[in-house]
Amino acid sequence: MSLDQPSQKPHDRLAAALAEEMGAVNALIRDRMASEHAPRIPEVTAHLVEAGGKRLRPMLTLAAAKMCGYAGPYHIHLAATVEFIHTATLLHDDVVDESEQRRGRPTANLLWDNQSSVLVGDYLFARSFQLMVETGSLRVLDILANAAATIAEGEVLQLSAARDLGTDEGVYLKIVRGKTAALFSAAMEVGGVIAERSEAEVRALYDYGDALGIAFQIVDDLLDYGGSDATGKNIGDDFRERKLTLPVIKAVAAATGEERAFWVRVIEKGDQRDGDLEHALELLARHGAMEAARADALGWVATAKAAMATLPESDLRGMLVDLADYVVARIS
Amino acid sequence: MSLDQPSQKPHDRLAAALAEEMGAVNALIRDRMASEHAPRIPEVTAHLVEAGGKRLRPMLTLAAAKMCGYAGPYHIHLAATVEFIHTATLLHDDVVDESEQRRGRPTANLLWDNQSSVLVGDYLFARSFQLMVETGSLRVLDILANAAATIAEGEVLQLSAARDLGTDEGVYLKIVRGKTAALFSAAMEVGGVIAERSEAEVRALYDYGDALGIAFQIVDDLLDYGGSDATGKNIGDDFRERKLTLPVIKAVAAATGEERAFWVRVIEKGDQRDGDLEHALELLARHGAMEAARADALGWVATAKAAMATLPESDLRGMLVDLADYVVARIS
Repeated sequence: MSLDQPSQKPHDRLAAALAEEMGAVNALIRDRMASEHAPRIPEVTAHLVEAGGKRLRPMLTLAAAKMCGYAGPYHIHLAATVEFIHTATLLHDDVVDESEQRRGRPTANLLWDNQSSVLVGDYLFARSFQLMVETGSLRVLDILANAAATIAEGEVLQLSAARDLGTDEGVYLKIVRGKTAALFSAAMEVGGVIAERSEAEVRALYDYGDALGIAFQIVDDLLDYGGSDATGKNIGDDFRERKLTLPVIKAVAAATGEERAFWVRVIEKGDQRDGDLEHALELLARHGAMEAARADALGWVATAKAAMATLPESDLRGMLVDLADYVVARIS
Repeated sequence: MSLDQPSQKPHDRLAAALAEEMGAVNALIRDRMASEHAPRIPEVTAHLVEAGGKRLRPMLTLAAAKMCGYAGPYHIHLAATVEFIHTATLLHDDVVDESEQRRGRPTANLLWDNQSSVLVGDYLFARSFQLMVETGSLRVLDILANAAATIAEGEVLQLSAARDLGTDEGVYLKIVRGKTAALFSAAMEVGGVIAERSEAEVRALYDYGDALGIAFQIVDDLLDYGGSDATGKNIGDDFRERKLTLPVIKAVAAATGEERAFWVRVIEKGDQRDGDLEHALELLARHGAMEAARADALGWVATAKAAMATLPESDLRGMLVDLADYVVARIS
């Protein structure tokens, strides 16, 4: 598709507008994931880094820096940093979830072993840390250190909330902010910080990333019960893994005694039988849980778009606004 | 024991000389390992952090800063940073090694699960990163980022070298520098850096930590075949886990054809039978492998002590010199 086709997805338009910078990011990623001493490292990371992920997070950093008029070299480092952090968390998540597929391909822990996934994830964290130190910005380091702590905290919280019907929407939001939104918001924020923009603008970039990340995760939850895109997920994966995602939390909150007993059996006790997924879908429909979760996602999209209004008009700003719309359009 | 008893171990003398600072480090560690949202985190870390580890690494940072005349507050942060990094790597190592005991107690992965160990390790890494950002020193951040990358690289290298009789002393040294010496040397180096000492002195601190770490790991390898101290290790653990440690590498290098076949069977193939550990000990003795490894450790101790000569005379310097001697004295 050419650049001027309006039917192009916002993500592809961003990729086209940032193609040169993204090329530099990819080159830096390939350079830094190499290890002189441990050839296992590039094997494992190449499997994941080259697997055709959408590179959404580094694009956010590049877009934020560029729309803020940044003229230096360090948005490339920060975009690579963000992708390394993301890749490291994927490697560790797959160990934690005992996943066998990611983006439609076997996970590293299946192809190699859990050991390699844990240690190569640690290596990528360390590499990301080296990259951000190179920017020389203590404020950037502070933002990314805080994001890393929030991510890990969200993951641990998710683990202890797993299979616990007591998980409410407040806990859910904390988990989602950790596992998804913290890196989205940090990716945006650091772009504004290295461009030395005003506090109000930096805050707006953060708010956009935070809201986009939350909307993104809610949609991910919805897709798991209502459809499949190119994520490589199968319908019902979250159900089989007994995850308390937003639609289920809403249905549990509205459940009758009998319905609650069903959720206790399938989610808390893990006693799942033929037809249970279909029954769960019925209960979600009965209480309008999917529609309510979709409305929440749309609310976060509106928040993301409103944040963008603080920043000067530009093509990139337009693409980020469209991207927020597109996140929810995936399920409509 | 009182301070002036010359029979006290160097480690205890250091602990006494740094008691006030170590109290502050422990308070900071307790404060920062808390998590408002995820109570699982302090449970897991307390199990490990409070388990009576020797706190050797943070003491190195405190000793280095204090002997260099540092008067600010950040040696406390850096000592806590170093202990967090160490604890995080222990959590991940125990997952990688599928360990069931550490310091004579059940490991976190056995008490909770591998998931918690992976994620709480990530949390501690992130926390350590926040702590070092607070020092405001980009040079310190650079040193610790590089150390983190070297540690992870060494761990991955160890994984791919495991059970491979082709592992020679050069590879062994790279692994040991990663898994042990990188944090010892960084712990010392950052103490000199925040005290703004000369490059020669900073380098000497690094060299001391590097050599001490290598000696420490060689002695650890020796203890596994020749005795047990308070580490909670059993004789032969490394043998049963088929690790290529220094004594084995030396014995393999000197092996006859028949002996090599034995090592191939027990280490590479993992076919271990009754009496194999005893036979391995015989082969180590036959080729003087234990004595040769001990001589190497003594060489590193001499390097560590020589490095200290670059620094001004002080009580702390004397204790660090004695500590180097004591590392090898553990096995004599």
